[in-house]
Amino acid sequence: MSAITYELIKTCKQTGARLGKVHTPHGSFDTPIFMPVGTLATVKTMSPEELKEMDAGIILSNTYHLWLRPGEDIVKEAGGLHKFMNWDRPILTDSGGFQVFSLSERRKIEEAGVHFRSHLNGEKLFLSPEKAMHIQNALGSDIMMALDECPPYPAEHAYMKKSVERTSRWAERCLAAHERKGDQGLFGIIQGGEYEDLRKQSAQDLVSLDFPGYAVGGLSVGEPKDVMNRVLEFTTPLMPTNKPRYLMGVGSPDSLIDGAIRGIDMFDCVLPTRIARNGTCMTSNGRLVVRNAKFERDYRPIDEQCDCYTCRNYSRAYIRHLIKCNETFGFRLTTYHNLYFLLNLMKQVRTAISEDRLGDFKQAFFEQYGFNEPNAKNF
Amino acid sequence: MSAITYELIKTCKQTGARLGKVHTPHGSFDTPIFMPVGTLATVKTMSPEELKEMDAGIILSNTYHLWLRPGEDIVKEAGGLHKFMNWDRPILTDSGGFQVFSLSERRKIEEAGVHFRSHLNGEKLFLSPEKAMHIQNALGSDIMMALDECPPYPAEHAYMKKSVERTSRWAERCLAAHERKGDQGLFGIIQGGEYEDLRKQSAQDLVSLDFPGYAVGGLSVGEPKDVMNRVLEFTTPLMPTNKPRYLMGVGSPDSLIDGAIRGIDMFDCVLPTRIARNGTCMTSNGRLVVRNAKFERDYRPIDEQCDCYTCRNYSRAYIRHLIKCNETFGFRLTTYHNLYFLLNLMKQVRTAISEDRLGDFKQAFFEQYGFNEPNAKNF
Repeated sequence: MSAITYELIKTCKQTGARLGKVHTPHGSFDTPIFMPVGTLATVKTMSPEELKEMDAGIILSNTYHLWLRPGEDIVKEAGGLHKFMNWDRPILTDSGGFQVFSLSERRKIEEAGVHFRSHLNGEKLFLSPEKAMHIQNALGSDIMMALDECPPYPAEHAYMKKSVERTSRWAERCLAAHERKGDQGLFGIIQGGEYEDLRKQSAQDLVSLDFPGYAVGGLSVGEPKDVMNRVLEFTTPLMPTNKPRYLMGVGSPDSLIDGAIRGIDMFDCVLPTRIARNGTCMTSNGRLVVRNAKFERDYRPIDEQCDCYTCRNYSRAYIRHLIKCNETFGFRLTTYHNLYFLLNLMKQVRTAISEDRLGDFKQAFFEQYGFNEPNAKNF
Repeated sequence: MSAITYELIKTCKQTGARLGKVHTPHGSFDTPIFMPVGTLATVKTMSPEELKEMDAGIILSNTYHLWLRPGEDIVKEAGGLHKFMNWDRPILTDSGGFQVFSLSERRKIEEAGVHFRSHLNGEKLFLSPEKAMHIQNALGSDIMMALDECPPYPAEHAYMKKSVERTSRWAERCLAAHERKGDQGLFGIIQGGEYEDLRKQSAQDLVSLDFPGYAVGGLSVGEPKDVMNRVLEFTTPLMPTNKPRYLMGVGSPDSLIDGAIRGIDMFDCVLPTRIARNGTCMTSNGRLVVRNAKFERDYRPIDEQCDCYTCRNYSRAYIRHLIKCNETFGFRLTTYHNLYFLLNLMKQVRTAISEDRLGDFKQAFFEQYGFNEPNAKNF
């Protein structure tokens, strides 16, 4: 029996979006879900209690970052990541691959793995499928990710084909190296860029290995939004219906809804927390840059339709003041609001699926948010 | 009837320390008390709910800083400082004088007030007794402080005498300019440095003006600890017994106890919050610099005798990791612990007074903390 199982509750008659539940060793969560990112064993500025208060069902943490600091052995000695960071709900860890391909310097990919230098101190490091499993087994996350190659967008078909094949071989090695199959579920990552034949090849390879869940990788890497949607349209039908489907690195409100409509169950992104620390908020009327001078004497909440802790208690004027003064509490307030906004959006998406009206919900949400306007400013 | 009244509950038979209660328009607090500092309308890194959870009875905010950012008119328009920052318990604001004398540049003191330049942008500003009242009336704090001159330590007797006399004249002007006597209580500040005759003169001048409370100013400005204690010993007997007594800028554990023993009721200091953000913690066994490498694999709480949120849930190893990575949550955890430590210390001091054993308590606390050791490292 796998550590991770998926229960399909129903499919939206209007859109095909899935309502489901994922069961893990640290409890279950409802899908579609957005996972806040806790890079270094903390969701920046937030406490675990705040994340629970806003009903976060699962968080993500980064293997690459925890490998470098404090080191996976320290987390393991502490009793694992859950205990280390005082979070008793599910945790997903990525493989470290994305950071190696985006952050590190002087990369060299070979069949055995990736040679690279630490983005912190230039130290020579080597990440292989076996190493990615070793670190994630030490961290003890509920859901682990297989090491994949993340080619940039756009990539040539010929390069992408080789990359997909290597990612499949690495996935097999990950499965073989994974030592805690009873406690931790390992997901495979379907690559292939915008190429339908390669996505198909990747999906077939990985599905044959029978992972308890699958991710769509290599999207949200700079491609236009319609490319992402098209890739999802031909990729999700290749994925088993009885396993969770995770779209990596996606967190803008429109893409969450569009992803759910195309059959995605799980999402993660640093977007809500990163823009929050820059004073930018997601609201039901679109983005609001609370640092702006025009909010100096605006005593309304960030989002007048929001009932989160921030919006119930603080004004734009106060939050602007704090952020202008670089006060931590300001970043706490915007982070809280943005995470609440996305978690609450996904709650509404789940309700809409259960009532077979996600298409209507999308139309109304996009309208109010401003996504339907020409040249709509996304995040 | 003054906005602020003091109720003396009892005096410790062993030491003379006072157990009391201060009543304000936003509720009452027990004394002796430590007041966390919320410089810019936020106690750095903390939420109001966290301050309440740790039982903070009153916080302090800085007139100078709020004058510069966001400006007292914005706070007033928001409905006052309590509403602006979502804190419904008492607030004390200082006069701005201390910051003008310590932070600002190119000061020029004259009878009318102080000319100086903003530490932020060099803007020319002028702070007078009337201006200090105007700002504090706009902020709407429960306890306001009169504008005083804060001479450096050591200062010549002749200079100090002139300064004390000016501070008395300024106090009288503050009283005349204070426009909200029904809602806000104004405290006078006794100056005079280490000179007994000048402290006496200052106390007599101010007591004759009948403020609802008095502060001892000009201490904790670099003088040795025994000088502070000696000054308190001859100054507090000059202060009315039916009014609260506030020792400004003091927050090291030993000085809080020594101050209480000499009849002080209220204390404030940035010390616990400032050192927390540097990774230094107060513990029942003395200071602990949690950033230190030796705590890398130390899975014990910061203080094994502490039952605060931080110590119940997180290890030194985790907190060290966060602080090394400059993660906000690490600073939240150390700040929470240090404030809890001092608030809890004052709770123990109050209990010891009520049981006439503050002298014994001091002895045991100093012993365990290490204050009795030769060259004991203070904060």
